[in-house]
Formats: sequence, structure tokens, C-alpha cells
Amino acid sequence: MSSFEDVDTEETVTSLHMTLYHPGHQRSGIFQSIKFCNRETLPTSEVVKFGRNSSTCRYTFQDKQVSRVQFSLQLFKKFDSSVVSFEIKNMSKKTNLLVDDKELGYLNKMDLPDKCLIRFGDYQFLVEKEDGESLEFFEIQFFLSIRPLLQENKWLPQKPTPECGSCSPCSTQNNSPTEAGENEW
Amino acid sequence: MSSFEDVDTEETVTSLHMTLYHPGHQRSGIFQSIKFCNRETLPTSEVVKFGRNSSTCRYTFQDKQVSRVQFSLQLFKKFDSSVVSFEIKNMSKKTNLLVDDKELGYLNKMDLPDKCLIRFGDYQFLVEKEDGESLEFFEIQFFLSIRPLLQENKWLPQKPTPECGSCSPCSTQNNSPTEAGENEW
Repeated sequence: MSSFEDVDTEETVTSLHMTLYHPGHQRSGIFQSIKFCNRETLPTSEVVKFGRNSSTCRYTFQDKQVSRVQFSLQLFKKFDSSVVSFEIKNMSKKTNLLVDDKELGYLNKMDLPDKCLIRFGDYQFLVEKEDGESLEFFEIQFFLSIRPLLQENKWLPQKPTPECGSCSPCSTQNNSPTEAGENEW
Repeated sequence: MSSFEDVDTEETVTSLHMTLYHPGHQRSGIFQSIKFCNRETLPTSEVVKFGRNSSTCRYTFQDKQVSRVQFSLQLFKKFDSSVVSFEIKNMSKKTNLLVDDKELGYLNKMDLPDKCLIRFGDYQFLVEKEDGESLEFFEIQFFLSIRPLLQENKWLPQKPTPECGSCSPCSTQNNSPTEAGENEW
């Protein structure tokens, strides 16, 4: 037991839950390279890029309308805060990015609210941050929505849609079957 | 002449002038891997890292007291601004970073003033931005100071010191001999 008793106390990690919606996904498999429901652990130093080019982006979309790099996310720590936050930067020259109602042109950046809707073209990504303690790692977990996340300019939760991409059954956060569906919209 | 007449109008690029000072440089060659006076053109998408590890950092310092990644700089565009700006993030768990009088802990970030003094340990870097038009590229140019940049808590320009690292004569910005020394301190 001593090795168990002696190891460092396990730290929780900050987690970004991203629920993705695009009207053409089911027809054209735009999100086919995204591993839904899988939790991916990344170092806090990583600038996470989303776009079309798989050599520069960690997460890619199979869609010629997407820029080679569409946007990037990176972790930082606010002054006098014990939790970490994320910054988003629009890397697309062609498409503006909306974070809730704030419009970002090429190379504009902003701090990401703890819960927000990111939009560009027909894409809608709901981002929700769950705080953890680690300053070494964070997690990203993707979910798929088959319904638009934005309706009538409101993006408050709609009726959950029990779909989670190609992952079935979906492993939700606490791996508890009774909670399945909570993170799918 | 038609090819000359038909090419796109040349754009100016934003330039970061960084004047470096460390009391131990002349003895131990801390800045030996920095090419002084040389202008280096980088893509605006690059997150430029400074530190000890040459596999992750573009600019390295030969000093075990420097963190593997000490800090990073990246370009962004402010809302409603036609010029680009830079953000700095402290990537060192061991050493706080001072930007003028603002102290940045691990993973803290801030927008870099157009002229400022960055300090960590015995290092003093004077950073001066010169605006350009390009949104594709920017430049970094290093100068070496043999005198401290900070004296009595003021970092206003001191008497210029005609030294520019291993580069002699130093190619200054406009390659004009009459202006030599203007960017060396």
C-alpha cells in the first residue's frame, strides 16, 4: 500500500466540453476526424488549432469552406485567479468568428467566457469550461449535436438529443449511465 | 519594366526591436545563439518562444537558470485597430516575469505596450514596436546592450553604447551609416 499512500495527490484537470453542430455533418461527414466523447489530455502550453489542414491543426473539419487554420484556443491564467481560462483567436482571413455576439476578424482575440457559443459559417460550437486544479494539463471532450444550438438568437439549452457522434454508448463525464445524455444536446 | 510595374505594392511589416542585456553575457556568452542586428521575418501565426530548449524555442539563452520555455510572444490585432499588437505569456513555473512594473506569474499573459521593459532574473529586454501594414509577416531584430537598461527604476534611454553583439559594423534599419547606433544602446 505504501506506493499508493506515497504518490502525489491526484489533481483534477480543467475540461473544455465542446458540443459541435453543422447542418451538413450527417450528409458529408464534416466531423469525421473528431473523436466524439473521447477525453483528450493536452499540455497547458499547447495552442490548439482548429481548421482544415491536418498538419497544423489538432482538430480538423472535412470542409473546403473551412480555412486551413480557422481559430486557435490557448490556456492562460488570469491575474489573481486560481483557475485557468482560455483565449480564442480568429486565424481565418476569410471568415469572421462570433463568440456569443462579439465578432472577431482576422487575428482578433478575446478571453473565452466559461460558457459561450462560437460560430463561423454554418458551424455552431457550444463551449463549456469545467474548472480543475492542474496547471500542467487540460482536457478537451467533444460532443455532437444533431440540432442547431442557436435558435432565434438564443442558445439556451434545448431539449437534449441523445446522440453522440460515432460513440455509442457515449461515455459521459462521470461514466454513470444515469447521467448519459446530460452533455449531449 | 512591366513585371516591376505589375507586382503588388510592397507592404511594410511590423517590426519588434529587442535590445537585450544580461550582466553575464560577455563572460559566459548567454546570448551566443542570438543573431544580433539580423532581421528575421516570421509568419503572423507563429507563437515565438524564448527559453533554454532549442527544440521548442526559436530564441535560446545559454543559461541553466532560464526555463526550458521562459516566455512566448504572439501577434494579434486589437478590435478596431489597423495595426497589430503583441501578447506576452509567462511560461516559466519558477520565475516571474516583469513587463514594466506588472508582474506575471506562470501562464499569466498581457498585451505588450508598444515600448516596454521585460525582466526576469538578471535579464532586461527593451522591446520597441515599429508599426507596419502586413498581416502576413512581422520582423524581429535583436540588439545587444552592454549597459543595464534599467537604472534607478527608470528605463528611459541612456547614453547609446556603440556595441551590437558579434555583428560589426551593425546593419541598422535603413542601412545608412549616418544612422548607425540609433538602435544600439
